[in-house]
Amino acid sequence: MIKILLDAMGGDDAPAATCQGAVLALANDKELYLILTGKKAEIENELAKYKYDKSRLEIVDCPDVIGMNDSPTEAVKRKESSLMSAYWMLKKEDDIGAFVTAGSTGAAIVGGQLILGRIKGIKRPALCPAIPNSRGGVTLLCDCGANAECKPLMLCQFAVLASAYAEVGFGANTPKVGLLSNGTEEHKGDPLHQETYTCLSKMNGINFVGNVEGRDIMLSGCDVVVADGFSGNIALKSIEGCGKLVLGVLKKELSATVSSKIGYLFIRKAIKRMRSQLDFEKFGGALLLGLKKVVVKSHGSSKPSTIAASIANAASIYRNGLVPAVEKKLEAVDFSALVPEES
Amino acid sequence: MIKILLDAMGGDDAPAATCQGAVLALANDKELYLILTGKKAEIENELAKYKYDKSRLEIVDCPDVIGMNDSPTEAVKRKESSLMSAYWMLKKEDDIGAFVTAGSTGAAIVGGQLILGRIKGIKRPALCPAIPNSRGGVTLLCDCGANAECKPLMLCQFAVLASAYAEVGFGANTPKVGLLSNGTEEHKGDPLHQETYTCLSKMNGINFVGNVEGRDIMLSGCDVVVADGFSGNIALKSIEGCGKLVLGVLKKELSATVSSKIGYLFIRKAIKRMRSQLDFEKFGGALLLGLKKVVVKSHGSSKPSTIAASIANAASIYRNGLVPAVEKKLEAVDFSALVPEES
Repeated sequence: MIKILLDAMGGDDAPAATCQGAVLALANDKELYLILTGKKAEIENELAKYKYDKSRLEIVDCPDVIGMNDSPTEAVKRKESSLMSAYWMLKKEDDIGAFVTAGSTGAAIVGGQLILGRIKGIKRPALCPAIPNSRGGVTLLCDCGANAECKPLMLCQFAVLASAYAEVGFGANTPKVGLLSNGTEEHKGDPLHQETYTCLSKMNGINFVGNVEGRDIMLSGCDVVVADGFSGNIALKSIEGCGKLVLGVLKKELSATVSSKIGYLFIRKAIKRMRSQLDFEKFGGALLLGLKKVVVKSHGSSKPSTIAASIANAASIYRNGLVPAVEKKLEAVDFSALVPEES
Repeated sequence: MIKILLDAMGGDDAPAATCQGAVLALANDKELYLILTGKKAEIENELAKYKYDKSRLEIVDCPDVIGMNDSPTEAVKRKESSLMSAYWMLKKEDDIGAFVTAGSTGAAIVGGQLILGRIKGIKRPALCPAIPNSRGGVTLLCDCGANAECKPLMLCQFAVLASAYAEVGFGANTPKVGLLSNGTEEHKGDPLHQETYTCLSKMNGINFVGNVEGRDIMLSGCDVVVADGFSGNIALKSIEGCGKLVLGVLKKELSATVSSKIGYLFIRKAIKRMRSQLDFEKFGGALLLGLKKVVVKSHGSSKPSTIAASIANAASIYRNGLVPAVEKKLEAVDFSALVPEES
């Protein structure tokens, strides 16, 4: 049995979406045990709508809910909130392996750092979503928003974190790592990226393939694209916006004429297959890498299926030993020699 | 008659694509006069394939061609190259209004600065493409790669340059300007973007609407998105990669089954309309804003239709007075008071 925590109050449609997601996840994985944190009465009310194995779900009553606009540094003090309670349990109880929340990203990051804590040696945690690519697989983009300001050491550690995730989560063998820049040549970028390029080139256990451009996130052969959180966030959101616009225009044009409406009946399944291939939420949310346990930050607008996917992904990478894999990779690198000025 | 220079040797398919593009442009605009720089014999050879008004085209023989991988600072010395010759003519001859090149971006930027020169008061030129958006119009993304390292003053000036382009090129009325960041809140981003936010808020003649995210480039109501060249480039290329992947998967799925192949026959026109709406090259290449004359940097892989669109866009914004519009906007702002540390 594997125990996973779910912040039942996190997300736009909580606790309805989280509770339904929990029920889906339990049905898909018979070895899963879920602990839901949040307002017990509301959660019970939602769960009453479904049939599920009650022996594998418990609720921890938390009277407080952190809002999307609450200050993360203030929120971290609210121990009775569904999010921070979960972090405290995650920290204290050895048999809980992972935590899933669709709540405030900022609060999840600050709570993760201050309550749960970072893996020894890791400077900062990073947000790492899995983005569909042209090989039919995913590219891990790390960091995509936890750190607006970065230093070379942080970017080098993101390479370690995401490489371990690529191996453990997606079976990548010596995952290829690119550095997101404004061109592929070695000298491209600002001093931060130029220095990071040099450090990544020298790192043990990292299969660094050089600079990559924004287009390479979806089109190249990279398993991992390392980015500072500022431009990583911009890349992720730009991709999101473009995908939304293209699918929107397609939908509009397919319903624009009689001919296209007829055609749609024939291509409905093709469109469905396309959508499934391009689905960002197949694996649920972004991992919050670098913490002492597995934490998945699901999108605020997560549907029940996204919550279920986040739980399944969290369970899978916990089982496959993400944190030990990171620790092993960290042992191979002497960061103080690699990036002397920051040691 | 309006005189425009075309670097006939710039781009992957030059001079074939540039010559055919020139012929197309001449046919579409009877008031256009083109000067092609490049290897005369090769150009004549290409032009011989088409019928066109020979009285409105001249060739200036340039024996040298700057390659895509040549160092821009070395390239700028090669006065006999098709690119630098064009800049020298643009600088010397008052009656030439604009210049189009699909050659090396770096060489075009350095040549523009060192030979043609910047508009008085402008610190750095910026690359500004027009990106299709959900309103059926375009969003101008400025800068998207000319300046990997920026200062607040530069970003504020990009707002001036792109606002003038939005007015003159696309008829925008008090164009809405967003600042590309990793979130919409005022405090988002690194110190560069935080400081830029403050400066943009105080600027006369700029309709600043606050921070925008990557998704807002295509989905928001902004006419202009101001970006440092590093993250602007990443946004542009991420959009490019996503668009390519989505259309690629759609194409694959539409030809995957008998049913979808039949459907395709009915939706062919819908797909064509979609492609036209999402066409990045409808207006040709990116403007190289901030120089003393209109310069359009067309994509290296430009087709003849892209070259023709770049020429048409260059002609249109020259006619509508881009440079005077920028100068007028600059008069309204006292940059030394706005960004004191950089005056």
